[in-house]
Amino acid sequence: MSQFLSPEALCCAPYTPGEQPRDQQYIKLNTNESPYPPSPKVLEVLSRGEAERLNLYSDPTCKVLDEAIAGWYGVRTENVVSGNGSDEILAFALRAFCGRGKGVAYADITYGCYKTWAALFGLESTVIPLREDFTIDVDDYMDFPGTIVIANPNAPTGMLLPASDIRRLLEKDPDRVVIIDEAYIHFGAESLVPLTKEYENLLIVQTMSKNRNLAGARVGYAIGSAALIAGVNRVKYSFNPYNVNRLSMAAGAAAMEDGDYFRLCCGRIEETRGWTTRALENLGFTVLPSYANFIFAKSERLPGGELYRKLKERGILVRWFDAHRIRPFVRITIGSREQMEALVKTITELLQEVCP
Amino acid sequence: MSQFLSPEALCCAPYTPGEQPRDQQYIKLNTNESPYPPSPKVLEVLSRGEAERLNLYSDPTCKVLDEAIAGWYGVRTENVVSGNGSDEILAFALRAFCGRGKGVAYADITYGCYKTWAALFGLESTVIPLREDFTIDVDDYMDFPGTIVIANPNAPTGMLLPASDIRRLLEKDPDRVVIIDEAYIHFGAESLVPLTKEYENLLIVQTMSKNRNLAGARVGYAIGSAALIAGVNRVKYSFNPYNVNRLSMAAGAAAMEDGDYFRLCCGRIEETRGWTTRALENLGFTVLPSYANFIFAKSERLPGGELYRKLKERGILVRWFDAHRIRPFVRITIGSREQMEALVKTITELLQEVCP
Repeated sequence: MSQFLSPEALCCAPYTPGEQPRDQQYIKLNTNESPYPPSPKVLEVLSRGEAERLNLYSDPTCKVLDEAIAGWYGVRTENVVSGNGSDEILAFALRAFCGRGKGVAYADITYGCYKTWAALFGLESTVIPLREDFTIDVDDYMDFPGTIVIANPNAPTGMLLPASDIRRLLEKDPDRVVIIDEAYIHFGAESLVPLTKEYENLLIVQTMSKNRNLAGARVGYAIGSAALIAGVNRVKYSFNPYNVNRLSMAAGAAAMEDGDYFRLCCGRIEETRGWTTRALENLGFTVLPSYANFIFAKSERLPGGELYRKLKERGILVRWFDAHRIRPFVRITIGSREQMEALVKTITELLQEVCP
Repeated sequence: MSQFLSPEALCCAPYTPGEQPRDQQYIKLNTNESPYPPSPKVLEVLSRGEAERLNLYSDPTCKVLDEAIAGWYGVRTENVVSGNGSDEILAFALRAFCGRGKGVAYADITYGCYKTWAALFGLESTVIPLREDFTIDVDDYMDFPGTIVIANPNAPTGMLLPASDIRRLLEKDPDRVVIIDEAYIHFGAESLVPLTKEYENLLIVQTMSKNRNLAGARVGYAIGSAALIAGVNRVKYSFNPYNVNRLSMAAGAAAMEDGDYFRLCCGRIEETRGWTTRALENLGFTVLPSYANFIFAKSERLPGGELYRKLKERGILVRWFDAHRIRPFVRITIGSREQMEALVKTITELLQEVCP
């Protein structure tokens, strides 16, 4: 390591993003992108001369975007903060609510960035194992004194924690912040945004990457009490006040306002998820019950790493985590029906090779 | 302050951006934007279907953008890192190179965010006063053991530090990082990017906000030795790996490749800066010698705060800093010739009112 680095930078544990090949030779089912293009309303708003105004700064308050989000959820703009993807928002939130004497708790199997941010901010992390069946036992978190972060549905399992469990966590200690990362909420599950009106200590984080088909625009946001949003903004204005660019701001607002297209795309993905799950189960796979736009699946006949490599050789990218407990699985993004048919066909062939 | 905040967030000192009125009633000379639209090549590349691919993540390595920047400066892509504006890049760099036992030094009068980031990261700050004439005396920094950040040209003065002085700083201690923030370098001064090949400890940070007319796209970057760039990337991948969105990435690369338009716009701004400086001097103003796309000016007859308010009443926004030593001044962005003529006309009228 270089002599230039600070002790804090030396302690970092940088995140490794899923492969993003720049050529187009793969069926890409590894980073949970939507297989559908953005809303036609997004394309329309982007064609309305916003590019010609790129010489002018974007609005640091993100008014247009926050209003669209607030309008969709029936909250006030003081309850919304937008960012350069939900990664930025989550990082701001962890800095706002965690630090000396305020640690963070998260599951052993969950979104990898929680650990990365904890290392970046030098936080004391309490890592709480999922149950054997990959569900979360909220009783394990009940007495934790710091901030709790739960991905719901969880990644990479896709499994959902019931609202009643989250209510119990919120009520146990009203001064303890609970962050619910709802990146994958809109594929059959109910968002807990309405609970932000009841619980001042609940921060909901969402992204437009998956359900609004805008991964490449980098738009995320948090919804919560005015006190929590002010905390996130305190960090935002200390880090990067102009954090959302003009084009993504316009795209995000337009996507938020197009409820019909959102429901259409999410509905299709749910449907395709059902089809894919049944097809893989028919091939002997175990598929965890997913509420997300991906499934987490394993086969006794093809270990995760081998399945990942063989699929890649055949032009299909899925994600494999070489980690304790989840090594047998692969995470498969739900693409279009055609993509999933190609996947199932390829897996069928692979299984025949292994065990003809 | 809320019970939810971490001690670190309580210590923040959030930055206050310049006013960004959303209505169009002002001649806006307060945030150093370019008065010219982005390059026609930017508009062209944005119309080529990139918006339709927004469902796919942007490339976390920013290859296309880094290649364009590296190509322009004749460096390798391992010497470049791109970000969501130079604010993000500067924040990453300060986290990478400053921390426990590695403080930061900057001038008393300079870009306000250095102080903000130092507070966010809990850094020990050494604030070094400019000389009486607002120049930087590098001898004051010579023995400083931590990281040095210098805006060159400085903001809000616009004044330039000679390369020979920066060489002395770099040579004094090759293990000490020197960050030169060249946000305003392209309006008559020479960038020190070529020195990054000689000095492993030099990080140059630039932005496309001013000279490439892309403030609203949020594109900034750093150029330096592979060791320094790896350090910045270490923080980037610990904070927000997908930090540049698809549209800004394409826009930034296209802007970088259009050298003719860049030279045309910067040349015009230099010319208009000369005209405006002479006009204000004719009205009795003191104007600091600026190499930036703004000037810092004061009149004995109209104190800074009063001038700012009276101009705002008349529909012209400039920036006034209510701070020690610079209170008599206003910072005026160089807009189009027409805008500056309107400014000079209005100031002439104001002076006649004050002292007919």
